[in-house]
Amino acid sequence: MIAILKRGTTPEQTEHLIQWLKHMDLDVHVSEGKEFTILGLVGDTTRVDMELLNSLEIVENVRRVSEPFKQANRKFHPNDSVISCANVKIGGGNFAMIAGPCSVESEKQIVDVATSVKAYGADILRGGAFKPRTSPYAFQGLKDAGIQMLLKAKEATGLPIITEIMNVRSLDLFEDVDIIQVGARNMQNFDLLQELGKTKKPILLKRGLANTLQELLMSAEYIMSEGNENIILCERGIRTYENYTRNTLDLSAIPVLHELTHLPVVVDPSHATGRASLVPSMAVAAAAAGADGIMVEVHNNPSCALCDGAQSLTPDQFKTLNQQVQKVREVLR
Amino acid sequence: MIAILKRGTTPEQTEHLIQWLKHMDLDVHVSEGKEFTILGLVGDTTRVDMELLNSLEIVENVRRVSEPFKQANRKFHPNDSVISCANVKIGGGNFAMIAGPCSVESEKQIVDVATSVKAYGADILRGGAFKPRTSPYAFQGLKDAGIQMLLKAKEATGLPIITEIMNVRSLDLFEDVDIIQVGARNMQNFDLLQELGKTKKPILLKRGLANTLQELLMSAEYIMSEGNENIILCERGIRTYENYTRNTLDLSAIPVLHELTHLPVVVDPSHATGRASLVPSMAVAAAAAGADGIMVEVHNNPSCALCDGAQSLTPDQFKTLNQQVQKVREVLR
Amino acid sequence: MIAILKRGTTPEQTEHLIQWLKHMDLDVHVSEGKEFTILGLVGDTTRVDMELLNSLEIVENVRRVSEPFKQANRKFHPNDSVISCANVKIGGGNFAMIAGPCSVESEKQIVDVATSVKAYGADILRGGAFKPRTSPYAFQGLKDAGIQMLLKAKEATGLPIITEIMNVRSLDLFEDVDIIQVGARNMQNFDLLQELGKTKKPILLKRGLANTLQELLMSAEYIMSEGNENIILCERGIRTYENYTRNTLDLSAIPVLHELTHLPVVVDPSHATGRASLVPSMAVAAAAAGADGIMVEVHNNPSCALCDGAQSLTPDQFKTLNQQVQKVREVLR
Amino acid sequence: MIAILKRGTTPEQTEHLIQWLKHMDLDVHVSEGKEFTILGLVGDTTRVDMELLNSLEIVENVRRVSEPFKQANRKFHPNDSVISCANVKIGGGNFAMIAGPCSVESEKQIVDVATSVKAYGADILRGGAFKPRTSPYAFQGLKDAGIQMLLKAKEATGLPIITEIMNVRSLDLFEDVDIIQVGARNMQNFDLLQELGKTKKPILLKRGLANTLQELLMSAEYIMSEGNENIILCERGIRTYENYTRNTLDLSAIPVLHELTHLPVVVDPSHATGRASLVPSMAVAAAAAGADGIMVEVHNNPSCALCDGAQSLTPDQFKTLNQQVQKVREVLR
Repeated sequence: MIAILKRGTTPEQTEHLIQWLKHMDLDVHVSEGKEFTILGLVGDTTRVDMELLNSLEIVENVRRVSEPFKQANRKFHPNDSVISCANVKIGGGNFAMIAGPCSVESEKQIVDVATSVKAYGADILRGGAFKPRTSPYAFQGLKDAGIQMLLKAKEATGLPIITEIMNVRSLDLFEDVDIIQVGARNMQNFDLLQELGKTKKPILLKRGLANTLQELLMSAEYIMSEGNENIILCERGIRTYENYTRNTLDLSAIPVLHELTHLPVVVDPSHATGRASLVPSMAVAAAAAGADGIMVEVHNNPSCALCDGAQSLTPDQFKTLNQQVQKVREVLR
Repeated sequence: MIAILKRGTTPEQTEHLIQWLKHMDLDVHVSEGKEFTILGLVGDTTRVDMELLNSLEIVENVRRVSEPFKQANRKFHPNDSVISCANVKIGGGNFAMIAGPCSVESEKQIVDVATSVKAYGADILRGGAFKPRTSPYAFQGLKDAGIQMLLKAKEATGLPIITEIMNVRSLDLFEDVDIIQVGARNMQNFDLLQELGKTKKPILLKRGLANTLQELLMSAEYIMSEGNENIILCERGIRTYENYTRNTLDLSAIPVLHELTHLPVVVDPSHATGRASLVPSMAVAAAAAGADGIMVEVHNNPSCALCDGAQSLTPDQFKTLNQQVQKVREVLR
Repeated sequence: MIAILKRGTTPEQTEHLIQWLKHMDLDVHVSEGKEFTILGLVGDTTRVDMELLNSLEIVENVRRVSEPFKQANRKFHPNDSVISCANVKIGGGNFAMIAGPCSVESEKQIVDVATSVKAYGADILRGGAFKPRTSPYAFQGLKDAGIQMLLKAKEATGLPIITEIMNVRSLDLFEDVDIIQVGARNMQNFDLLQELGKTKKPILLKRGLANTLQELLMSAEYIMSEGNENIILCERGIRTYENYTRNTLDLSAIPVLHELTHLPVVVDPSHATGRASLVPSMAVAAAAAGADGIMVEVHNNPSCALCDGAQSLTPDQFKTLNQQVQKVREVLR
Repeated sequence: MIAILKRGTTPEQTEHLIQWLKHMDLDVHVSEGKEFTILGLVGDTTRVDMELLNSLEIVENVRRVSEPFKQANRKFHPNDSVISCANVKIGGGNFAMIAGPCSVESEKQIVDVATSVKAYGADILRGGAFKPRTSPYAFQGLKDAGIQMLLKAKEATGLPIITEIMNVRSLDLFEDVDIIQVGARNMQNFDLLQELGKTKKPILLKRGLANTLQELLMSAEYIMSEGNENIILCERGIRTYENYTRNTLDLSAIPVLHELTHLPVVVDPSHATGRASLVPSMAVAAAAAGADGIMVEVHNNPSCALCDGAQSLTPDQFKTLNQQVQKVREVLR
């Protein structure tokens, strides 16, 4: 970590600051230039409160030379991590197609969708049992019953399942869930992250609506620092001023994360765009950009022809999407 | 709620949609124009998934005519809510000055700061015991011990105290805390909100870094819908591309929230700007814009002269700030 | 256009508003519901000031049913536009690879780069002669001389050239330029757009850093309304809070624009990401998402080995990128 | 300027970079630490392309120690600049109230509004003759005739006038205009800025919708570097995801700009919020935060009672606003 001091800082102030930093078990190397003084801090700088240091009146700027994440850092773990759940692998060249309905609505619905998406190439079944909703009056999911239905679909098709957790207190219900999803709104629910770190379950961690990629990695670090290294990162769109799409899908997150971390990266184009018509091209683009997996919403509701234009794809649209994705992956191998 | 259908929608599709809406116990009024068809939905539309409806292929646009929040809505509760904690009132013309250190560090520190800020006009003492930190390696606060120290400061000065909760499991520790703070990162931790709704404690709810004012009100609604109406809203800056300040303080949130809701609105200029030099002018501006309270960081560390330029004010700076704020409030009365 | 009136609007106010709207040559259809009144406006609503209408106290919301752009609208021009410049076509299945240095530095440099990128598959040569720079003290480009050098490179290689205009007064210099680029900062320089509309030159119009896709189309409409329909739209990243990349490349702009307009869409991953290491994956992803062309920076400076990691690609990196892009396009055909 | 090199940079690469920097007439001081190498660059670093330097593969980070703006910089000009137009002064304790209609519509309209706002305390008359509009089909202002009408209003009331320029070619029309406004969309129309730099007219420069405060100062620097130091900066809201207000007014821009520059800062709450009901509280807040002036929209249209709720204030609302603003300024003196 490097701290650049402002011009006009007195020797006493500099000395004060150095003592304070040494107090934190850091070695401090002073480099005095004609126009500025630079302090090089060596030691375990992850404990230094960078914002506080930066806000000191005599400090012009503070800059980490090393990233604040360790276990998620590719520098210390050059090979891609491969996350296994049941017989499916994600990362290190292994690609997972995750598909299923937004919400679990009934056993028949989830088993039907699971059967369809399996037939058309899905590796993992998704479906919401606990639904984070902006409004307390909106449908909050079937909860425990929804998880039971997902397990029936898993039994019927053999597909591993992924579903979202919203509360540490419901962790017991997830015993037979293969991958636990942490939603965008909980990306910085640090208590939840730490509890999940004490399990051995694969965790799919979604990027928050207003979070930087470094913050996403720090949240992964929260889980990893408790002992669980089975983490899949998920880009699902960020909030911008553009209002034609629900959020703005940041596909550059894929190569950036591949540079910074060894963890696999999955993309969710359904939530990001909010429109079924945009999902196929964004899924194919994500595969082309090197994503380790794609997660899309597929419904299976022949009685509701209206829903065809919504965020979810029909099984047939999913079939075509999957074929395109596989073709692109093959040609770029 | 009004749904505008796309040109070219067939009568069958329209009928399908109407049946689906009636299924949700809504009355549907159809208004067919030459160029568009409009459906007026009457009934309890808070349960309608607006995003789903909007994403249907035949739907051009959906618009709520009534806001999705009820208990927080000024339309149904025209008078300002006044939140009481101990002998302090907030809202309806009652202004609260909340001050204290970022983190509780020791009993002496918190009692000293409490004594200073009380002498200079603070109504409520703030101080962090549980600290949400981006990094798992950073100082996470003194936790239980920190709350005990805050209680000592309360005892010593008589000031009511406010401190942040991060987890429903630690709720018991907050029994003697006067106001429970929900931080920006937990604004949409819906489980936490619902649990707090079952208490009678005043809750200070901070706006999330990327949340709209309507979402802030929906989160308040989560608490209120469980029975707790003692809510104070807090604007603390939103995330934008501007990087000179830590966040962008949105002071227009004050008059907007006063139009939409009866709940009091407090502003935190310390976290929003991240620089002590900007705090006084933003505090005075917040008071001028009609804030019901201001929450600022004050430290009391004569041995650390360095800290003077940081995010926190010195007690003397706080004294001046408070005088200015009071003067502005008086002249605008 | 539809205007929803607020509950409580008096008949007199409604009548006032209707008269005002009829004054603008609009037919007004009134639909009175139990809970709201809706006005349907029929006629040439492109002249209606939607912001003003929306801001009236009695108006709850205003919604366009038809898009405000006409000539750029796919509804009125279902087939893809194909833009021709020299022997190169863009759009309607025709893909253009545009490559070249950020700035023209010398005749030798631009001819060398042109020769390299032509050999490796470029269809069009890019190079900045007029450079929009944040600082008045930074290098502003070789200007007229730069354009002359580009013309030499065109002569030497036969590649059509594209370069940026910053001022209507320099339009004469662009007589032999094949495509005129309007930069992100000038996307709403309406006078410049109108002047370019009076030419017949193909115009590559870049999306502004904080502009919506609808605003981009309205700027295209400015050019088209003056008679020039040869417009290529360009996504080049928008400004968000993420700071690892220079801007956030919004690839969903490709399918969205293809839905809304018949104009071709080109993507510039070099400026968007600001890092050479991210350019290839974003270029391939753009092609997979259906872009009609890609514009990348390529330098050719063997003496400056340092520059290899910058925003620009080496010719060899460009060669590989182009091969990947072509493979993806072929497999998705 | 300081450049931090990445770990693993070879001595040859470092030497290459140093030669390249020296080539730009910079002195380079090397400080080699155990974990990093730092280059201190001394000389005229305003010409260094920071983005290019930052994007080099061996460079970890580049940081300016001195700001890139010189003439606008308070460090080199500690006293507040005072801008004079006719008998009105802005800055250095002088406050200007600028009021008038959005657009000039007729001579009668502008003279009437001018008379009203003068009676109620305005110092300067505003009114749009050239209107930047998103749509080419919307009313673009009365142009030359509008300026003539403003001049009539100036003659009738003695108020100096401010109006927006959109094009260097219309500069002659502004000869008798007292302050020329550069709108948000033209903040980085560098050619226009340079031409205005060659005049002696006071320029009110509005911050762009997605521009940082540093970029605003660099645009001021464009004007100043050509010789015109009469610049007034204007905060008018930035684009965020919040959609209740038209833009998000960033009042922290006031104290930030006062720290960084000696130029006066004016705030436009009308365009920022887009709602008349929010304008008074934001105007008073701006005054409390230390603004050197406020610019608000006032209409005067007794026949159009409907317009009362729009973005513009009535003269009576303006009168009250002005009284409040003056009271706040007085009490904070």
